[in-house]
Amino acid sequence: MANVITKKIYYHDTDAGGVVYYANYLKFFEEGRTQYLEEKGIYTEKLLDENIAFVVAKAEIEYKKPVRYKDVVDVITDVEQIGNSSIVFVQRVIKNNIVCCKGKITIVCVNTQLKPIRIPDAVRNLIMEEINE
Amino acid sequence: MANVITKKIYYHDTDAGGVVYYANYLKFFEEGRTQYLEEKGIYTEKLLDENIAFVVAKAEIEYKKPVRYKDVVDVITDVEQIGNSSIVFVQRVIKNNIVCCKGKITIVCVNTQLKPIRIPDAVRNLIMEEINE
Amino acid sequence: MANVITKKIYYHDTDAGGVVYYANYLKFFEEGRTQYLEEKGIYTEKLLDENIAFVVAKAEIEYKKPVRYKDVVDVITDVEQIGNSSIVFVQRVIKNNIVCCKGKITIVCVNTQLKPIRIPDAVRNLIMEEINE
Amino acid sequence: MANVITKKIYYHDTDAGGVVYYANYLKFFEEGRTQYLEEKGIYTEKLLDENIAFVVAKAEIEYKKPVRYKDVVDVITDVEQIGNSSIVFVQRVIKNNIVCCKGKITIVCVNTQLKPIRIPDAVRNLIMEEINE
Repeated sequence: MANVITKKIYYHDTDAGGVVYYANYLKFFEEGRTQYLEEKGIYTEKLLDENIAFVVAKAEIEYKKPVRYKDVVDVITDVEQIGNSSIVFVQRVIKNNIVCCKGKITIVCVNTQLKPIRIPDAVRNLIMEEINE
Repeated sequence: MANVITKKIYYHDTDAGGVVYYANYLKFFEEGRTQYLEEKGIYTEKLLDENIAFVVAKAEIEYKKPVRYKDVVDVITDVEQIGNSSIVFVQRVIKNNIVCCKGKITIVCVNTQLKPIRIPDAVRNLIMEEINE
Repeated sequence: MANVITKKIYYHDTDAGGVVYYANYLKFFEEGRTQYLEEKGIYTEKLLDENIAFVVAKAEIEYKKPVRYKDVVDVITDVEQIGNSSIVFVQRVIKNNIVCCKGKITIVCVNTQLKPIRIPDAVRNLIMEEINE
Repeated sequence: MANVITKKIYYHDTDAGGVVYYANYLKFFEEGRTQYLEEKGIYTEKLLDENIAFVVAKAEIEYKKPVRYKDVVDVITDVEQIGNSSIVFVQRVIKNNIVCCKGKITIVCVNTQLKPIRIPDAVRNLIMEEINE
């Protein structure tokens, strides 16, 4: 039950090596996670009004194939695991059916003091529906 | 009475054209203005505590010569003009005595509603000393 | 005969002031110009194969209203003028019918030595059609 | 035998959450690795002339504490391991003696076809000296 966004690569994504700069995949992954959550009806900016935020705690990125200027890629986002206060996403950047970059991103639900808190049940249920489908 | 910072160009500054990406000079200019103000004893983060902020209202950038990976450049910052609520900076990126990029950046002093307000006298005086020297 | 792209604002577009960082509008403008040219059948990456490139020579940006996280904006791109070797774009970032940021961007057609050259007639004609409509 | 660079945090490093954006630590790490290598006399841009490049193959990042606007941090870079064609760096962003972000970055030595090749002995020896000291 993955979520897909499609992105065209612009100069601002690339570096002088002629390829997408290694940090910029994390921007694509932010966009992919946001889209994933919004499709389930989860809007992080509304959670902020209740003093609930999600922060990235860990990112493991594998760079497999270069992506270049004007390439068009799919960013595929899945939830692999959901714990008490954390969600583990697996995200892939795909070009012509080849995985160019893969990320495993752990986000943690925190309060305004940045202390981990239990993910609200409403949020959890919306994601679990997805995982169980 | 210009202020100078020296920067080395990294991959993250460049794009697939092999040169510094045109938006990234504005990051160098932010750093230059900050350094300029701090050398005069003006700390924008302290002004924020008094609900005073500076925002960029206008930027005019001329791109004259390319700057490349591992180049070392000087970013030179000057105040050209100071009005009731605005300051006009002239900033240059110099490589081997050649101006590669020139910016004229207008910042405006605003309150928390982003309405222009008079620049605090303390700030004005610290900058005027500089201009008059 | 403007060209429009729609963008959602992500964390990576913003800064600690809570708004889109002033340099990042230039990324939106790059995307807008690319889209404008591609809709007319002009692909800058193909011109590169003929050793023809477009580089930004000048950018004049006015920042009028802040844009924030999760805002959705339109980026509207128009050609204002086309010279022997230069094209002047006018670009606007619009939120709820209000112009938040306006840019006038001059690009210049250059050869591999970065010397200005005449814009190829094929490119000129595709843009002129647009302007004359 | 770690290498240290000191960085001030600017608006362009942060996001609307008020902290350094999670991708931007990878820029700091790029700078740290470059500095590390240059102090040993290894200049990646010179290796490129011999058709030898280093590309990032893997990045594992732990985000432990937020870093904010105008914070000053140290970026500490160490080599943990050196293989036939790969180097594993451990990098830390430190504020007031606290590790805010830790990265383990694997780079791979490649030829112009991006195939892994043996790290040149000259490069290896310069790094090994460091590790053995």
